Amino acid sequence: MDKHERVRAFFSRNDKLAGYLGMELVSVGRGTATAKLKLRDIHMNAAGLAHGGTVFSLADFAFGAAANSSGKMALGVNMSISFIKPGESGVLTAVAREVSAGSRLASYAVEVSDDSGQVIAAFQGLVYRKRDDLPL
Amino acid sequence: MDKHERVRAFFSRNDKLAGYLGMELVSVGRGTATAKLKLRDIHMNAAGLAHGGTVFSLADFAFGAAANSSGKMALGVNMSISFIKPGESGVLTAVAREVSAGSRLASYAVEVSDDSGQVIAAFQGLVYRKRDDLPL
Amino acid sequence: MDKHERVRAFFSRNDKLAGYLGMELVSVGRGTATAKLKLRDIHMNAAGLAHGGTVFSLADFAFGAAANSSGKMALGVNMSISFIKPGESGVLTAVAREVSAGSRLASYAVEVSDDSGQVIAAFQGLVYRKRDDLPL
Amino acid sequence: MDKHERVRAFFSRNDKLAGYLGMELVSVGRGTATAKLKLRDIHMNAAGLAHGGTVFSLADFAFGAAANSSGKMALGVNMSISFIKPGESGVLTAVAREVSAGSRLASYAVEVSDDSGQVIAAFQGLVYRKRDDLPL
Repeated sequence: MDKHERVRAFFSRNDKLAGYLGMELVSVGRGTATAKLKLRDIHMNAAGLAHGGTVFSLADFAFGAAANSSGKMALGVNMSISFIKPGESGVLTAVAREVSAGSRLASYAVEVSDDSGQVIAAFQGLVYRKRDDLPL
Repeated sequence: MDKHERVRAFFSRNDKLAGYLGMELVSVGRGTATAKLKLRDIHMNAAGLAHGGTVFSLADFAFGAAANSSGKMALGVNMSISFIKPGESGVLTAVAREVSAGSRLASYAVEVSDDSGQVIAAFQGLVYRKRDDLPL
Repeated sequence: MDKHERVRAFFSRNDKLAGYLGMELVSVGRGTATAKLKLRDIHMNAAGLAHGGTVFSLADFAFGAAANSSGKMALGVNMSISFIKPGESGVLTAVAREVSAGSRLASYAVEVSDDSGQVIAAFQGLVYRKRDDLPL
Repeated sequence: MDKHERVRAFFSRNDKLAGYLGMELVSVGRGTATAKLKLRDIHMNAAGLAHGGTVFSLADFAFGAAANSSGKMALGVNMSISFIKPGESGVLTAVAREVSAGSRLASYAVEVSDDSGQVIAAFQGLVYRKRDDLPL
């Protein structure tokens, strides 16, 4: 397995919340990652729409994998998310990409789309990079 | 039941993600709410610490109840969260309060604390207020 | 003048802070805008680096123009900015693009780069769209 | 002069943008600071209201002083701001307070109010704390 595939396998196996919610880490590349989630009743808020916590968790899953894609540990320190359209049903897809990386800080943008390809939420995440390797 | 207790009952009953994750809405007041979560294995990230999505979801649950505490519907449009310390075990508590309310927008601050009372995450949420009543 | 050029002229003429700080709105397109600033002593913080307020203001200028590029009024309601590298000297460039637009809300991403082309700050902005036209 | 007064004097003297915009650092305490600004024409946006960059810069000035109030250097890494009401005229006041401090990260909340005491903007800032002393 190449490094990115080992990172994908590591997060798929060890991220307990992602597993509990049914999120799948589809792919990891250099500074990028894609995660998917089939919406079910358990993912909904009191209005019967995709919960903010659901959409955030999916974006965060892709963000974390992208930020750790080099195999070095990165800690999420701040995230901001804007909800543009409701998520109603079907499969949500979160695509993360690196926007900028400095010596210790790096910033990632994640777009969460619905089945029709429309972006329903925009997410920005900041990590602090450690010198430690992930236990891949 | 008074209005705030009806709001609390409404979110407790209808927020499916909150129920699935085991979050409890302890109290709702005027522009405020408190939610709790006993951390379990399913709430953890790949490092064995409270997942960003878990902490966000708990903060968002308190935020949503506080923002809807008047009985008028409010839609979360943006949230920002900073993670200061890891959440390791025990019970997390999120306390939300209104910072400012204009004619259509309102801002809330949520602090998430651990068992020792230390704030592990700071959350800021913005809602757009609709004129509709919640179906309490 | 086409519509985008009229939007550019409108903001160039009427944005007083932008003028006072020496920021230039270089171009406006459909959901996009670019602004520039030559760093001077007045733009610096107590450490002699580009002030957070300077970098934010430049990003906000590009964001505002991009969000209003259709000629309809849009109000900035939330912005989040991450600082990845210090801005030391030379010309800063902010490029804004639309990430998602719903019926009333829209989200924009702005990257602020230095002379070397490195992204020093990542900005995410959310607007509420009004039905009013800009007084172009 | 006590330490907090030296921090106040240091930022008042060396923050060039704050001086250029006419912002005053009124007081600094332990993890807190207050800054003021009398709104003038140069602070306005294209709609004739207080510019997002103006309000952000004032909040950031109070945030920076609060985060450095111990005399140790702290670098702002992320800020999020929500605009609830327009700032029209008069004096704006930004009050910053520490929400949480970990070993290297700390979070601050800033509320910006107008003359009537109403909160027009809510700001959340995250710093990374260095071991270096400020050159007070």
